[in-house]
Amino acid sequence: MHRFSLNQITTKNWTLPEAVAGCAEAGVEWIGLWRDRVAEVGVDTAAALLRDHGVRASSLCRGGSFTGAGPDGPVADPIGDTAAAIDEAAALGAPVLVLVVGGIAGGDLPGSRAAVAGALEQLAPYAAERGVRLGLEPLHPVQCAERSVLCTLDQAVDLAEPYPEEVVGVIVDEFHVWWDPRIEAAIARAGRRIAGFHACDQLVPLPDPLLGRGLPGEGPIDHRRLLGLATEAGYTGPVEVEVFNAALWARPPKEALASAITAYRTHVAEPAGTPLP
Amino acid sequence: MHRFSLNQITTKNWTLPEAVAGCAEAGVEWIGLWRDRVAEVGVDTAAALLRDHGVRASSLCRGGSFTGAGPDGPVADPIGDTAAAIDEAAALGAPVLVLVVGGIAGGDLPGSRAAVAGALEQLAPYAAERGVRLGLEPLHPVQCAERSVLCTLDQAVDLAEPYPEEVVGVIVDEFHVWWDPRIEAAIARAGRRIAGFHACDQLVPLPDPLLGRGLPGEGPIDHRRLLGLATEAGYTGPVEVEVFNAALWARPPKEALASAITAYRTHVAEPAGTPLP
Repeated sequence: MHRFSLNQITTKNWTLPEAVAGCAEAGVEWIGLWRDRVAEVGVDTAAALLRDHGVRASSLCRGGSFTGAGPDGPVADPIGDTAAAIDEAAALGAPVLVLVVGGIAGGDLPGSRAAVAGALEQLAPYAAERGVRLGLEPLHPVQCAERSVLCTLDQAVDLAEPYPEEVVGVIVDEFHVWWDPRIEAAIARAGRRIAGFHACDQLVPLPDPLLGRGLPGEGPIDHRRLLGLATEAGYTGPVEVEVFNAALWARPPKEALASAITAYRTHVAEPAGTPLP
Repeated sequence: MHRFSLNQITTKNWTLPEAVAGCAEAGVEWIGLWRDRVAEVGVDTAAALLRDHGVRASSLCRGGSFTGAGPDGPVADPIGDTAAAIDEAAALGAPVLVLVVGGIAGGDLPGSRAAVAGALEQLAPYAAERGVRLGLEPLHPVQCAERSVLCTLDQAVDLAEPYPEEVVGVIVDEFHVWWDPRIEAAIARAGRRIAGFHACDQLVPLPDPLLGRGLPGEGPIDHRRLLGLATEAGYTGPVEVEVFNAALWARPPKEALASAITAYRTHVAEPAGTPLP
């Protein structure tokens, strides 16, 4: 279980102190943090909680919205907000800030994509100075219009390539990329730029573009194969189990964590004998 | 309106005789046929109806399910069924048979994709002999698991490339491919392999992976740009307006056709002055 990380959204009803304590109790060494839950206790308290419990942040979710368009409408200051998120990640010791780049603004898809490249240019030096890696996460094409004009791993690598790999990386989230006929080549090409791996499954047929995800094993994704490709490409860091699912959220979070660990062990984790990072 | 074609699904409640008469009355020269509606009257009657009304088939929908897995479960004889569809297309004078290749069988995505290539190898000579072009239609990745392991236009061109372009073509359906960051390059690469163009929009947020489509203009797709790219690449054939939408289907089909024509003229059709094919 050395690579397992609990992405906080999987135990959505836990506060940050509850989630950190829950991880420590379950022997989970990593947690993927969400900014809203961090903000409830403040960054300093959150950092102290992590230290006290011996739990490390695998990432902070999230900055971005660079197009100025999100699912809830216009986003006022995406650059300023993402700079603040970079500061938070640095203070929390989170090595990666996950970026969700935003949806289509003004009906202009090519223009919205250009805006993302422009925002990266502004923010990469700021992130580099603070030792925080930016993690570009392509989202499933079904979310292109309202959440992310970044749709494929290849496109993420194209965006990241002008920057050193320790400054701008890419996130492989299974739900978003599993269907891609170029995924093998794209993961190989991403190589050491891979800054995070998110495990979850897709429910079939998809009941909802956002919440239609399941625990690994509940859908068609071949997790061992995808994680194997990423590991072979050079990613040996934590694997966040990140599940948006209303039924899972309705269960006691401690049970949801236990189910996530079981699903990870059964369907995701590398076979026994795999060398430790 | 010389390129406008009514895909029958847009007026789902019309029988074939009603749809053909409706097209003739509205001055529509093309129709995209569906096999279930053709079967209700028989192929010979359908062919005679088309002749009598001066309406031509732009395509026949559909063959495929080559993986053996469809949204309603296993498909018994996809090769035999598609061969029958090729015969029907020939008898109807439909130049193209649209192929939807099928979902994941046995949890094996790479194996399912290989099965599609194998089926094409079996069927391409049969189609060539009968003068029917096979039209590989990539579907939106949201339908990968249950309907189509063929997810991108590039992947369709890869599959088609071993065959002459007049034997195996590809279908550009806006709903399925508009988000693709490689769409410009993929359409240019497809070139004269493009065997059909389907216009519709995506509703945002997507209410349903199958029915969440709208008339052109109701969503984020830049139709004029996509059709312009396809036309520039060498596709000058009919443009089917194909809309899966329960609210549209609940309206009188004659009104639905009128709305489709208006949406096509307003949002899709090439600007006045474009040379005729």
